[in-house]
Amino acid sequence: MFSSLKRFLIGRPLKSNALGEQKLNKTKALAILSSDALSSVAYGPEQILIALATIGTVAFWYSIPIAVGVLILLTALILSYRQIIFAYPHGGGAYVVSRENLGVNPGLIAGGSLLVDYILTVAVSVSAGTDAITSAFPSLHSYNVIIATIFVIFLTILNLRGVTESASILAYPVYLFVLALFILIGAGIYQIATGTVPPDLHTPVGTPVAGISLFLLLRAFASGSSALTGVEAISNAIPNFKDPAPNNAAKTLAAMGCLLAILFSGIVWLAYYYGIAPSEKVTVVSQIAEETFGRNFMYFFIQGTTALILILAANTGYSAFPLLAVNLAKDKFIPRMFTVRGDRLGYSNGIIILGISSIILIFAFQGQTEHLIPLYAVGVFIPFTLSQTGMMLKWIREKPKGWVPKLIINSTGAIISFVVTIMFFLTKFAQVWSILIFLPIIIFIFHRIKKHYDAVGEQLSLKTCEPIIPIEGNVIIVPVAGMTHVVANSLNYAKSLSPDQIIAVYVSFEREDEKKFEEKWKLWEPDVRLVTLHSYYRSIIQPLTKFIDTVQYKASESNYRVTVIIPQFIPKKGWHNILHNQSSLLIRAFLLYKRNVVITTVPYHLKK
Amino acid sequence: MFSSLKRFLIGRPLKSNALGEQKLNKTKALAILSSDALSSVAYGPEQILIALATIGTVAFWYSIPIAVGVLILLTALILSYRQIIFAYPHGGGAYVVSRENLGVNPGLIAGGSLLVDYILTVAVSVSAGTDAITSAFPSLHSYNVIIATIFVIFLTILNLRGVTESASILAYPVYLFVLALFILIGAGIYQIATGTVPPDLHTPVGTPVAGISLFLLLRAFASGSSALTGVEAISNAIPNFKDPAPNNAAKTLAAMGCLLAILFSGIVWLAYYYGIAPSEKVTVVSQIAEETFGRNFMYFFIQGTTALILILAANTGYSAFPLLAVNLAKDKFIPRMFTVRGDRLGYSNGIIILGISSIILIFAFQGQTEHLIPLYAVGVFIPFTLSQTGMMLKWIREKPKGWVPKLIINSTGAIISFVVTIMFFLTKFAQVWSILIFLPIIIFIFHRIKKHYDAVGEQLSLKTCEPIIPIEGNVIIVPVAGMTHVVANSLNYAKSLSPDQIIAVYVSFEREDEKKFEEKWKLWEPDVRLVTLHSYYRSIIQPLTKFIDTVQYKASESNYRVTVIIPQFIPKKGWHNILHNQSSLLIRAFLLYKRNVVITTVPYHLKK
Repeated sequence: MFSSLKRFLIGRPLKSNALGEQKLNKTKALAILSSDALSSVAYGPEQILIALATIGTVAFWYSIPIAVGVLILLTALILSYRQIIFAYPHGGGAYVVSRENLGVNPGLIAGGSLLVDYILTVAVSVSAGTDAITSAFPSLHSYNVIIATIFVIFLTILNLRGVTESASILAYPVYLFVLALFILIGAGIYQIATGTVPPDLHTPVGTPVAGISLFLLLRAFASGSSALTGVEAISNAIPNFKDPAPNNAAKTLAAMGCLLAILFSGIVWLAYYYGIAPSEKVTVVSQIAEETFGRNFMYFFIQGTTALILILAANTGYSAFPLLAVNLAKDKFIPRMFTVRGDRLGYSNGIIILGISSIILIFAFQGQTEHLIPLYAVGVFIPFTLSQTGMMLKWIREKPKGWVPKLIINSTGAIISFVVTIMFFLTKFAQVWSILIFLPIIIFIFHRIKKHYDAVGEQLSLKTCEPIIPIEGNVIIVPVAGMTHVVANSLNYAKSLSPDQIIAVYVSFEREDEKKFEEKWKLWEPDVRLVTLHSYYRSIIQPLTKFIDTVQYKASESNYRVTVIIPQFIPKKGWHNILHNQSSLLIRAFLLYKRNVVITTVPYHLKK
Repeated sequence: MFSSLKRFLIGRPLKSNALGEQKLNKTKALAILSSDALSSVAYGPEQILIALATIGTVAFWYSIPIAVGVLILLTALILSYRQIIFAYPHGGGAYVVSRENLGVNPGLIAGGSLLVDYILTVAVSVSAGTDAITSAFPSLHSYNVIIATIFVIFLTILNLRGVTESASILAYPVYLFVLALFILIGAGIYQIATGTVPPDLHTPVGTPVAGISLFLLLRAFASGSSALTGVEAISNAIPNFKDPAPNNAAKTLAAMGCLLAILFSGIVWLAYYYGIAPSEKVTVVSQIAEETFGRNFMYFFIQGTTALILILAANTGYSAFPLLAVNLAKDKFIPRMFTVRGDRLGYSNGIIILGISSIILIFAFQGQTEHLIPLYAVGVFIPFTLSQTGMMLKWIREKPKGWVPKLIINSTGAIISFVVTIMFFLTKFAQVWSILIFLPIIIFIFHRIKKHYDAVGEQLSLKTCEPIIPIEGNVIIVPVAGMTHVVANSLNYAKSLSPDQIIAVYVSFEREDEKKFEEKWKLWEPDVRLVTLHSYYRSIIQPLTKFIDTVQYKASESNYRVTVIIPQFIPKKGWHNILHNQSSLLIRAFLLYKRNVVITTVPYHLKK
């Protein structure tokens, strides 16, 4: 039943050699990998205006130079991630670049922040999208957490079905959103050009503003830069592209950069020209749309696609997280299970863990994830800074042909990203301090895991010398609970192994019981030696373990091995298991972990 | 670590022969077994007044005749449960009585309702007590669910420590409550006698009331009877008494009856004399206390002990539920695990299940369990009716010396209980209908479980003939994942069993891998035959199972047995397990349940 549900939800398993068919062309890749970045257009310009609004509407013209700064940073990031794509064509993005060029710990800082960040991406964008939807239908508002959870589950299942399938479905809303914003910007510019909009709604650029400070401008700039989160996703996901993967990835990155630049500057410009002030109740994009079209079909089209893209921004996390996890798992910093491909050839463990973690976050914050945004932005700019710095060092060290312009690009990116990171810490410390605690803990765990894997590898490897001493003989212990077919079946098997000795062990809770059992046993199985143990504390494991220790002590003297044969009946239906004392399970687990004995389970399958 | 936490919480394990020390004397038994019944004094009289208030304050004098009716019912119940105690001195109460005299299904109806009822007792009384406490500290009100849960956990742990220990602690608040109410009633009567209270606060008994109906009076009577829930607990818990258990239980029951009668009639009388009307905000007991003492120390003493007794009423559930469960489990209607005594000789599984179930109820109803009260009352009166009817039949059938008065007592009890039950269905159907769905489901499950146990017993019993055919030989299959110490260790063991054939099986995911492995294997273990299987779908279990099926088919022809030896390394620390692919666990579980092969685990213990 479970397996047919699984088949229904995620589809038939794919053969390993079908991997090529699961690769993305540029159109689909652009849709699913840029949804995060593009969606930030819906809130990035607003963040700039909110920061400036503390001075007054007269300061709004500063959004223009700030937007120019953001565009410069965007250009630097796009160009330098383009270089990363060609330099590290197997993906891994900031983690691999930092690890290779700066060392293991900077690599882990970059990888750790991105890993946490993708979880935040999913939680934050799905919550934001759900909020946008329930604002339209207030009666649904109290079900926010449930609705967001359903969206996460939907995205998780879609991604488990495989990357091509999710891309085919999700491409439509992404392009519809782009289309909607293009129409909005085009219509706005047309209206301005034809003079429909009064030209006195805004303060001219350059108007002196009392009380403006560099700190405030940098803060607005940092807020605006949160629109650039998601730019790194393509560099993590290169293996998902059709061949030639690096070329296709680079072209997709360029396309994303152009789209982002046009939409971002268009929205900032319209907001400035219309003199729009940020409001608690209506978003800036919504105000622009109402100003341009009034409350007609286009307005609702823009509102609807914006809500959708916010939810789909989560999908960028689903594309990038599993691939980043593979890189970390290959280096043994996180559990190996992240490298296993699932039925549909996606890294399903990564997808599932991402889904579960973000659902936990949504529940923990009851869907109020807005105050996680700065944390999420700083979690992106730390790896931005590290990867650009890594690339700087790479150029200086390797000095390939034409390295100077490359160095300039990456240095610009590194410096601006660093400034933005610092700005986040200076201006929003209350919301981002927790990263200073989480990151060291995560990196400590990474190292512990790596240490464990290395220790295990060393112990298992045949290179370490540990001579195999042939086993001289076997003693078999069979714990018995009564005289039944199950026990008879196990004794029959024990005898067939022709061991040197078989000992049946009976643990009794009451004294009078013992004699009776011994007498009956003599009649039933006179050939098998029976040992009865009395348990004072109603525990089977305790006296049994003590007895096994005694036997093992004697056995080890002559290199004998002790095997415990556990008779077990297997009920016909799964639910029957809860009706039986799981003593055999407990005995097995205890002995396996605490004693060095071989454990054999002889099943007796019940027929009804 | 887990085990030392357990020791700290519930104490050192006790030897089985220490059971006698875990028995209760009458004083302690009265405290823990009557807390439920006594606590109902805090709300029973109020329920009568609420029912009468629908007509008007002029009808309040009817509380006197209704209270007389409740007292008659109480007397009948106490006398007939006294007879049950002597007739069934091993406990089991209504379940055993009904099963013996009326048949299995009436027994299961009684047992099933009581089982559910004790869970309701715990949930309802702890919620009510928590409410009483948080009304005094309104800032705690939003933590009601958490606080109630903590109380349930506290009671669960206390009961796991053993019945004497919990009784020693819980006896104080119970007797303090009784003392508090005695002082209240005494002071009230003194004030009335000395004429401090004006005698015109109430309508005289017998005043004609317009609109009164038999239906309304019966409804008020049914509501008042909810004060009698908990009366049956002693008859379930006879085995917890010191010897001679039935005598001690009967005396305790009589004492409880007297206390209950005095407190109940005292409260009803004072409420009537003071002319108190039920209010949403202040309880009747609280109004009486304020009327008598004003808001001084005594008022708060009464309020405090009332809140405490409401919580401790839950403890009656903890005493009776596990013992009732033992009786049902002995008859195989519920899982056998309920018959196992824990470390401290209590039936810990029953205690834990009761705690968990009531926490689930508290969460499900978010602590608003008041509307469960009628359900809970009807769940008590059904077994009351059944057990009295059972006793009636017993006397008629057996006709022992002096059976006629006994018959009259039980018949009175049966008829009144039956009327109350019907009244609950007629007057509060909206709140009690669910029992008509739950009970049949529970009884169906009881029968399914019994059927399963009987089927298993029959299949395991050696009486059914199934000749043991000696095993001719053994084939051993060792799934290997590489060439490591773990595998070497398993092969060494396999060889020591001197089977007829050992086959190592390697499942590869990639074609080029296979040849390489085979070549290496030939150099490493030339004596052991290696079979490589290719897995198209990255599953180890699928190709392995297919291979095992082929081997088994051949083996079964000549009565050979197939053993699968699973090499497994055991990490040093528990948490390391999550870092390793649990394939060996999955393979084992799958083969054990789906195929008839012997599964042997050869552990290789890692040293770091």
